[in-house]
Amino acid sequence: MIDPGTILERLRSGDRRLLARILSAVEDGDPELPRLAAALAPATGHAYVIGLTGPPGVGKSSVTTELIGALRDRGDRVGVLAVDPSSPFSGGALLGDRVRMQRHALDPDVFIRSMASRGHLGGLSAAAPQALRAYDAAGYDTVLVETVGVGQSEVEVAEIADVCLVLLAPGMGDGVQAAKAGVLEIGDIFVVNKADRDGAQAVTRELRSMIALAEPGPDDWKPPIVRTVATSGAGTAELLGELDRFRAEAERTGRWSGHRLRRAAAEVSALALATLRGRLGRPGDDGSDRLSELAASVRDGRLDPYAAADKLLAARK
Amino acid sequence: MIDPGTILERLRSGDRRLLARILSAVEDGDPELPRLAAALAPATGHAYVIGLTGPPGVGKSSVTTELIGALRDRGDRVGVLAVDPSSPFSGGALLGDRVRMQRHALDPDVFIRSMASRGHLGGLSAAAPQALRAYDAAGYDTVLVETVGVGQSEVEVAEIADVCLVLLAPGMGDGVQAAKAGVLEIGDIFVVNKADRDGAQAVTRELRSMIALAEPGPDDWKPPIVRTVATSGAGTAELLGELDRFRAEAERTGRWSGHRLRRAAAEVSALALATLRGRLGRPGDDGSDRLSELAASVRDGRLDPYAAADKLLAARK
Repeated sequence: MIDPGTILERLRSGDRRLLARILSAVEDGDPELPRLAAALAPATGHAYVIGLTGPPGVGKSSVTTELIGALRDRGDRVGVLAVDPSSPFSGGALLGDRVRMQRHALDPDVFIRSMASRGHLGGLSAAAPQALRAYDAAGYDTVLVETVGVGQSEVEVAEIADVCLVLLAPGMGDGVQAAKAGVLEIGDIFVVNKADRDGAQAVTRELRSMIALAEPGPDDWKPPIVRTVATSGAGTAELLGELDRFRAEAERTGRWSGHRLRRAAAEVSALALATLRGRLGRPGDDGSDRLSELAASVRDGRLDPYAAADKLLAARK
Repeated sequence: MIDPGTILERLRSGDRRLLARILSAVEDGDPELPRLAAALAPATGHAYVIGLTGPPGVGKSSVTTELIGALRDRGDRVGVLAVDPSSPFSGGALLGDRVRMQRHALDPDVFIRSMASRGHLGGLSAAAPQALRAYDAAGYDTVLVETVGVGQSEVEVAEIADVCLVLLAPGMGDGVQAAKAGVLEIGDIFVVNKADRDGAQAVTRELRSMIALAEPGPDDWKPPIVRTVATSGAGTAELLGELDRFRAEAERTGRWSGHRLRRAAAEVSALALATLRGRLGRPGDDGSDRLSELAASVRDGRLDPYAAADKLLAARK
């Protein structure tokens, strides 16, 4: 049991174990979450949430590690949330990444955590914002959200974060072409990592022409391309500069507040929908419930699934 | 417009263009879908749906191509549905795979199609069963559903299919370890492809000990391991034998019918939920709707998202 009455005070005083327990509660979908969320709410809204995504092997955790260093140098407290899309095939990657970030592990102003979202009501789209709110309430100025760039997690990270970094690197096969359509939509800042390698020039050129061809956003933000060599730290200062510029511009144009409104709306919808899902029920073991009856009709070709869905909803009214 | 009145007759007479149009309608979430689904329903329930998944590079499309050949040799009509998890980073892979299967493209009894699920009401979990029902009604005896093994698609394919093949191969790094937990749950039959390469023995041994340690399922099915060399066809006949054995066993124990019931229930729930999601609404542009108001309170820390979700649901009652 976490006492909601003292939660803010304890988080603010640097109680890392409490933060870890809250994040576990989020991950597990603890029934206490609504009470914890209510206690955290008044202390939220300050952290700058930076999403990082990109194909496997592009150097996401190295760039994250460099960014942590640069943010710490100017005094920011930094949280890192590595989001695991719960894939049986990608489970290994994040573990390795956490090891790579260990050089910051002893810094009391850095908090690194990876999180799956199996148990949570509403899935990742509801769990991650809860986790970010805990970091925020605990006084972390910047939170880096890293996803393995597979499945739909990179689209989700763009919805969760204030700004979305898309990382590419030379030598990833035809990664840029393959990535083209989706990546342009979600990238606010592009990072060409491993920029000292053959082909970095070509990737940058290709990205630049893709950006030039794309429709400009409503607020005229033109995604910049930053070239980094995360192993040497080259480009990190420039990347941080672009992150600051993005925030300043977004606040100026109102995009910041609008984006946060849409995020909150998505979160509220996801939680409401999870409640509704619970009300629809699951098929029971004895097959006597309404959903089981309808499902048997669909299985046996006596009913189509749309008609069955209508009947299910009518029964719940 | 597709005429529901003649749809079954035309599909059964081998109208491939009609099947393609139905699959496009499924992919796009066409408003005519409920009527089409009602027309198809009576002719469904016959096809054996085989899911294939595994990490990228394991040889899924080569194994699929070999299976198509073996199934055709015994006279089965074969459908292939390559499911695209809509990832901006994986968009390229499936295109290449389809090219590889082209040697079956001129066979009138083979139908190959890849499908994204962006537009569909209820997402992939509702779209793929609709597509499978179209193949089924068109008289395909076996439908192979292939997914790129990233994100959550491999879990979803296990929910969609009658049997789930999990492919592994030597030289995939620590793929087996990484895959361990999730893969054991979804694999009904394991395939170690590229079995002529170094390390195939080790992958097989590791899999075997993982399976030995796992809890046996309620019906005592013990997932077999089949070693294949898809480029030479070695192991394909054995794989087909295991697929037949799986079906016979599942029908004998009742697992077949129970699994199909759960699939139908999941599909009906997904469609019902999509309707409910529509009723919750999206935040409007002027911010005057209930969801926008609640989202603004959450964004500004005046309300927590759980309380907001409760208020949203209360407003819709």
